[in-house]
Amino acid sequence: MEVTIVGAGLVGCLLACYLSRRGHEVTLYERRPDPRTAGAERGRSINLAISERGIDALRRLGLAEEVLAEALPMPGRMMHATDGALTFQPYSADGSHAINSISRAALNRKLLDAAEAHPNVTARFGHRLAGIGNGTLEFETDGGPVTEKGQQVVIGADGAYSAVRARLQALQGTDFSQEYLDYGYKELTIPPKLGEFAFDPGALHIWPRGRSMMIALPNPDRSFTCTLFWPHEALAGLDTPERVRAHFTQEYPDAAEVMPHLASDYARNPVGHLVTMRCDPWHGEVGGMLIGLVGDAAHAIVPFYGQGANCGFQDCVELDRCLEETGDDFAGALELFQRRKADTDVIARLALDNFVEMRDKVGSRVFLAQKRIEHALERMLPGRYVSRYELVSFTTTPYAEVERRIARQRRWAGTSAAALLIAGAVTWKKWR
Amino acid sequence: MEVTIVGAGLVGCLLACYLSRRGHEVTLYERRPDPRTAGAERGRSINLAISERGIDALRRLGLAEEVLAEALPMPGRMMHATDGALTFQPYSADGSHAINSISRAALNRKLLDAAEAHPNVTARFGHRLAGIGNGTLEFETDGGPVTEKGQQVVIGADGAYSAVRARLQALQGTDFSQEYLDYGYKELTIPPKLGEFAFDPGALHIWPRGRSMMIALPNPDRSFTCTLFWPHEALAGLDTPERVRAHFTQEYPDAAEVMPHLASDYARNPVGHLVTMRCDPWHGEVGGMLIGLVGDAAHAIVPFYGQGANCGFQDCVELDRCLEETGDDFAGALELFQRRKADTDVIARLALDNFVEMRDKVGSRVFLAQKRIEHALERMLPGRYVSRYELVSFTTTPYAEVERRIARQRRWAGTSAAALLIAGAVTWKKWR
Repeated sequence: MEVTIVGAGLVGCLLACYLSRRGHEVTLYERRPDPRTAGAERGRSINLAISERGIDALRRLGLAEEVLAEALPMPGRMMHATDGALTFQPYSADGSHAINSISRAALNRKLLDAAEAHPNVTARFGHRLAGIGNGTLEFETDGGPVTEKGQQVVIGADGAYSAVRARLQALQGTDFSQEYLDYGYKELTIPPKLGEFAFDPGALHIWPRGRSMMIALPNPDRSFTCTLFWPHEALAGLDTPERVRAHFTQEYPDAAEVMPHLASDYARNPVGHLVTMRCDPWHGEVGGMLIGLVGDAAHAIVPFYGQGANCGFQDCVELDRCLEETGDDFAGALELFQRRKADTDVIARLALDNFVEMRDKVGSRVFLAQKRIEHALERMLPGRYVSRYELVSFTTTPYAEVERRIARQRRWAGTSAAALLIAGAVTWKKWR
Repeated sequence: MEVTIVGAGLVGCLLACYLSRRGHEVTLYERRPDPRTAGAERGRSINLAISERGIDALRRLGLAEEVLAEALPMPGRMMHATDGALTFQPYSADGSHAINSISRAALNRKLLDAAEAHPNVTARFGHRLAGIGNGTLEFETDGGPVTEKGQQVVIGADGAYSAVRARLQALQGTDFSQEYLDYGYKELTIPPKLGEFAFDPGALHIWPRGRSMMIALPNPDRSFTCTLFWPHEALAGLDTPERVRAHFTQEYPDAAEVMPHLASDYARNPVGHLVTMRCDPWHGEVGGMLIGLVGDAAHAIVPFYGQGANCGFQDCVELDRCLEETGDDFAGALELFQRRKADTDVIARLALDNFVEMRDKVGSRVFLAQKRIEHALERMLPGRYVSRYELVSFTTTPYAEVERRIARQRRWAGTSAAALLIAGAVTWKKWR
């Protein structure tokens, strides 16, 4: 089958690999220039954390090792208090599991190479989808508007602000929502300090400050990419270099010390928005063509569980499975793929919940004690009691199943605690 | 101030009257031709029920009497059972309050006349908003595209599928959702029977059938406009005249008898969709112009509380109040007008809830007994206990305040019932 994928970002490229492996002819259209020859966009989610769901999707294509070679493992979180005190909290019970910091641009280049290595994949850059006609796709290019014959199947992998989804949304009967947080994000850089990492590169660094937070992920060049997640008015409030410096010196003193270009970076880098988008269904017929959505185009989520790209990669595995189950009947496969919405709804909610955890709770002793108890339980009852973070980040268990399992564990833990209390009471009565 | 209103439907025209009364210069753009010279669209919400909120908004402009002269009062619901049994249930405790059946087209013509009677209102028909440029509005007309200089203030009163809102939605930070019911609607006609109304014209007729329903509203020409609210698959299922006839004869026998053109109407009339749309905020800056939304463009709701137009009319009263409070500073007034969202969120929810009541509960004896008890309470405690339907349909109490009042009444009724039970128990013990 001839398939068009709109968007040659992470998910579009990975899907191209999966579809071409199934023998389909894939044309990828991307609005930006080829990132392998042009420079990366500045200050827009420069790096991300790849964990098991993403790695599994790469592994099935034999790409995992190559990708992970460029990534830096982060086995835990490092919390930075205002007084400079550091607290490390491992992500898994035995400290062996890590999420992996990788540059979005490097990953995208690798996946583009992987996609184009398939003889039945063609990529066209500088093509911005402007409309879907009757059996045609209209693009804007530097050379003016271009109309291409649409393939029978058009998959939108064109991100949160998907142009493909815009056409699906206009169909009566398509539910849709976009919900913004009152928070913006801004990226900054901590350069190497005397040629070395300024902080431990084996952690995701968090500066939890209640309503606001900053995080930092290590890069192979020994710098860190920082991201501020602040209320919009707070971001707008620092409107002079002096105010920026003063605020950072007070709130993030250890970071301020190692950020020589802080004020100019702050002034120059754009503010991003944080949005959750939901669409239902993810497929339909537009202009006589079968249209489907994957990744952020179908279910953009906020970044606080580090699952955006991982979830999109798992979409590709799931869509591949749906094609397998339906004998590559795309109409049936896209219908079947809709079952994944139960999962993406869960991770959308968890990602929103995790923001509160990251910016506020991780700084509290009670929270850290809870995590230690949780990890102790996991070690005592291996495979029986598993934390939600472990299930989300270090397994490929469908997200909705993760929530069902957590609910079962809690019921069971409640019953066990009650049984222990009764046993204790009986013992106490006996020995009194 | 010069103000553009996009959409010369019910709410756009009424708002034009309110704004011109405040001394503003208003230009109304409407995508359809002038309805006073062209025919009405077939099978699209031909009539509606005007109640106190709508009447109040008309009264303030001296238009209420004239409009109500063309309306038919419906003081209650008439339920039609499958065996032909009729049950009348008054809307208010003393049966004196009525909602008023009126043709949307007649009302629109009257409001257009009223708007154009103001020398500072100009209406332009056949102008479909295609885009908002930098200080310009782009329209499509029969004569080709037209670019008009945009006024400083542009108000979208262009309905559920608002083109103005589409531009606002594209701003980062605007929350939006569209949610469809799995139900469609289709309009049919019950013509006069030997020159007379086929059913009692003093009621809104309902054929509650559990998952489906039909309603009928009287017209001055002694016909009734019927609307089917059925699951989409049920609407699609009746695909031959025989099936249509057979189904109606079985489910709506008394109506089928008086619908000679049933099968051809059914085949010809389109299926409408039922959608709830939410947007937040309702205002923003696009192309250097101040943009605001009112009516369905801001908050499209399903029709089951008969409040769509009434709510839109009350929007005009409220926006007029906001302009009064801010000395006609539109930026401030639109900001202030946002307070109405708490109210429109409530009526959106009530309208969805009422669908279940209308199609299912109104057919049950328990429900009718509850309504009789409620009306008895209202008569015993005048002004103290007031039903939700009464507050929504026969007062102008803000919708959110209606819900607070209902919650207070329920608490109070619960306490009273408990007190009565205790008093009863004490009495019983004493006399035992």
